[in-house]
Amino acid sequence: MAKAIKSKVVKETLKLRRLGIDTYRENVAYLHRECEVYRAEGFQALSKVEICADGRRILAVLNVVDDADIVTPTDLGLSEEAFVKLGLEEGHMLNIEHAEPPVSMDAVRLKIAGARLDQQDYRDIIGDITDRRYSKTEIAAFLVASGQTDMDRDEVFYLTRAMLEVGERLDWNESLVADKHCIGGIPGNRTSMLVVPIVAAHGMLIPKTSSRAITSPAGTADTMEVLATVELDIKKLHDIVRKHRACLAWGGTARLSPADDIMIAVERPLGIDSLGQMVASILSKKLSAGSTHLLIDIPVGPTAKVRHMRQAQRLRKLFEYVGDQLGLHLEVVITDGRQPVGFGIGPLLEARDVMRVLQNSPDMPNDLRQKALRLAGRVLEFDPDVRGGNGYAIARDILDSGRALEMMNNIISAQGVQSEEFELGQLTYDLLSPSDGVVVDIDNLQLARIARFAGAPMDKGAGVDLFKKLGDKVEKGEPLYRIHAVYPADFKFARVLSERDHGYLVGEEGQIPKAFVEF
Amino acid sequence: MAKAIKSKVVKETLKLRRLGIDTYRENVAYLHRECEVYRAEGFQALSKVEICADGRRILAVLNVVDDADIVTPTDLGLSEEAFVKLGLEEGHMLNIEHAEPPVSMDAVRLKIAGARLDQQDYRDIIGDITDRRYSKTEIAAFLVASGQTDMDRDEVFYLTRAMLEVGERLDWNESLVADKHCIGGIPGNRTSMLVVPIVAAHGMLIPKTSSRAITSPAGTADTMEVLATVELDIKKLHDIVRKHRACLAWGGTARLSPADDIMIAVERPLGIDSLGQMVASILSKKLSAGSTHLLIDIPVGPTAKVRHMRQAQRLRKLFEYVGDQLGLHLEVVITDGRQPVGFGIGPLLEARDVMRVLQNSPDMPNDLRQKALRLAGRVLEFDPDVRGGNGYAIARDILDSGRALEMMNNIISAQGVQSEEFELGQLTYDLLSPSDGVVVDIDNLQLARIARFAGAPMDKGAGVDLFKKLGDKVEKGEPLYRIHAVYPADFKFARVLSERDHGYLVGEEGQIPKAFVEF
Repeated sequence: MAKAIKSKVVKETLKLRRLGIDTYRENVAYLHRECEVYRAEGFQALSKVEICADGRRILAVLNVVDDADIVTPTDLGLSEEAFVKLGLEEGHMLNIEHAEPPVSMDAVRLKIAGARLDQQDYRDIIGDITDRRYSKTEIAAFLVASGQTDMDRDEVFYLTRAMLEVGERLDWNESLVADKHCIGGIPGNRTSMLVVPIVAAHGMLIPKTSSRAITSPAGTADTMEVLATVELDIKKLHDIVRKHRACLAWGGTARLSPADDIMIAVERPLGIDSLGQMVASILSKKLSAGSTHLLIDIPVGPTAKVRHMRQAQRLRKLFEYVGDQLGLHLEVVITDGRQPVGFGIGPLLEARDVMRVLQNSPDMPNDLRQKALRLAGRVLEFDPDVRGGNGYAIARDILDSGRALEMMNNIISAQGVQSEEFELGQLTYDLLSPSDGVVVDIDNLQLARIARFAGAPMDKGAGVDLFKKLGDKVEKGEPLYRIHAVYPADFKFARVLSERDHGYLVGEEGQIPKAFVEF
Repeated sequence: MAKAIKSKVVKETLKLRRLGIDTYRENVAYLHRECEVYRAEGFQALSKVEICADGRRILAVLNVVDDADIVTPTDLGLSEEAFVKLGLEEGHMLNIEHAEPPVSMDAVRLKIAGARLDQQDYRDIIGDITDRRYSKTEIAAFLVASGQTDMDRDEVFYLTRAMLEVGERLDWNESLVADKHCIGGIPGNRTSMLVVPIVAAHGMLIPKTSSRAITSPAGTADTMEVLATVELDIKKLHDIVRKHRACLAWGGTARLSPADDIMIAVERPLGIDSLGQMVASILSKKLSAGSTHLLIDIPVGPTAKVRHMRQAQRLRKLFEYVGDQLGLHLEVVITDGRQPVGFGIGPLLEARDVMRVLQNSPDMPNDLRQKALRLAGRVLEFDPDVRGGNGYAIARDILDSGRALEMMNNIISAQGVQSEEFELGQLTYDLLSPSDGVVVDIDNLQLARIARFAGAPMDKGAGVDLFKKLGDKVEKGEPLYRIHAVYPADFKFARVLSERDHGYLVGEEGQIPKAFVEF
């Protein structure tokens, strides 16, 4: 209300200046302390302001500047993304005013007080977040308030639908558009790069869009990028999928679930990942991408995201409930998350593992092959013509015959072969077993951390290469894994970290924790 | 852990540059995109970084700059407060590294999941917040997670004690140090400026430190500043209190509850104000200020912070429980919060009301006088020599005899008479009654908003002057209140806002809501 009033009376008095400061997803506006508007309006640093001209308006956080070389008292400086978003030329005259807190924060405050919100509340909240009316702290307040203890399954459905409605939605014009998604947390685990070519070779449509790593050592998009271009515009994506029935692209170019992108940027650094938010995030992205049939992989293990079977079952039910409400054919598989999947951790090492499986190479990681075949088998059974239980055998035939490799090569060519040749990090360090025995535990979190310290995913050739997996016999002094790094500083960090806590436990056969699942 | 490792191996390679950008309480560091350290470390914009040199270290959020006029690739720019906090000269060589998330965020995540935290958890969280290891979003996560539904009374006690321990604590070397505090939300209501001189004239020690307004049109510090200097250093504060038994100063100069200052800066803009956080904030501040006896004022009314008697009683119990645990002699009074107290809203208008009461002027606001006398009476009864029930009469005698005015003048002289003469805003607008009848409702929130739009508390002479209060008869066209503003833009905003919703309801006698309390 206040905003509507104010916009009537203030004139455009400030000159737009592009400051070339990258503040990531937060818009920042810079005013000089002597600026008249700053004085008259009673702004404070960190005030939320609204900047408008020619009917365009963006919200920003205010920083106050004392140095006239950065902005003069008649300038209004904008950070890079804010400048691009406003979309006006430098020198354009602007107006700036107090931004009132978004009205939907009232609903967030109700949520904090324990209330149940309805569909309209979630629409209002997600609408305001998408329009960037929320500050980072307001987003954090919403994420925490709607955390796992406080959203019932209908609320998760409302949230998912609201997130879906604000984004664009791809339409493939087919009745069966398959997809698979893992909730994450297990290093290695690049099954998508195997499932997609297998399923596509069967003729099923599987246009896979993936994310880059935010807190992990590699996402599917980072790993695929070792082999091919992954940043494709929507038109090219459509052409490739029409021709090859599949793609393995980065999902960030299509504006599929914009609210999710904004919320994830706050959620991940906080390290909070509530079940309700996870389900809404995944399902809104997948439905926006046009999927009709979705297989969800929930790994369970002591250092996985989901640590107990009962938690996995609760998550499964939630996925099923919301998926059903939204008309999505959704299946959940609960998998063994006790250790990394495959040998490599880091983009280049993981791409190597994937290619070895596709090439039926004798030194391929068998666990990655087995898991990919089982997942692909379940996806294939979405096909009404595939008899229940036959999917695995079909997937295996496609992989063994080389048809999956051929499909992968087609996808790579279609997306564009990666022009840069990446090398494995030349700085290496072997972590040696402290004793004789059997590997009884591998800490997913610690190995991911070591790989990130070594430079993954930023440096494609950095990471960790595992030589031993759960149940393997080792002798004292035998290497458990090798760290690869590109830069000396990263190398030292990773090495010192692994010397402190190498993430392995060597003990006796009987100590290996039982797998919760036989998948 | 990671931090400790990293600091061993990185050399100091960047030159400190002071950027003169005021980012309020958030430290910001600026690196050029071509900077080698930026490249090698894999920082992203909005990464949390730690900057160190000479054993000093601060945490900051990273912004990436493309313009070498702001920072060159070998500079590290710092925002104003960050520069001051680091305390090094421009040109000093620095080191920058990834800041790991604070360990105590694990406890916050447990709280989000619904766990009960113990004393050590709250010590760790408050310690990290005080050391500025938390980003704004992490603070928001903690505030929401520990919101009203989720902290039991022992947790509120743990939190209060943790906040108390990290700050400095004033010691007045007396066994009875009195204080009073209102939880806020009622415009006008400047009772402290009456209670303090009355109580001090009786000889009781009452060193009052107050805050400035954050979201209200005036705090006690803003109003007192109309008459006297309020920013006093600790030594001067002690001298004044020793001599006059009282002061009315701004509490911000003494670093009393630093964690509270940091949290309030996040909490207020979010508009969340949970009971547990409120109790911890108030009691940690009062105990740090050396109070031994505290009177808490909880106004109740339809547009007050506390809207129902049962909520007021719950809050009272919580104050009592935590106060008792901490050895504070604490009394709670529940007061009538149905409308603003006094006539004026805004620093100068409220100071005028206070002085009229002290001067026993015939045009003084009687409700302010009555409330102040009752509160002062209760504070006086902290004195073991004052018989229960006699406080009010003693307070009235002190006020009527002019001794309170004399004490106020002594305090003003001691703190330093305000050198600037403030004038009432010359731009005025009278809001006229839409009909004949009786004033049956005055919306505290809307009147506070109108006063803020008019420029309060930034412009001392801006605000709203009420002519009619609850129960007053009015005729159609008769003025209900007058808006005062200093700047034309503010004047228009406030006027338009009050025309839309003037905050008064004129009706029939029987419609006046009953006061919940007879105080």
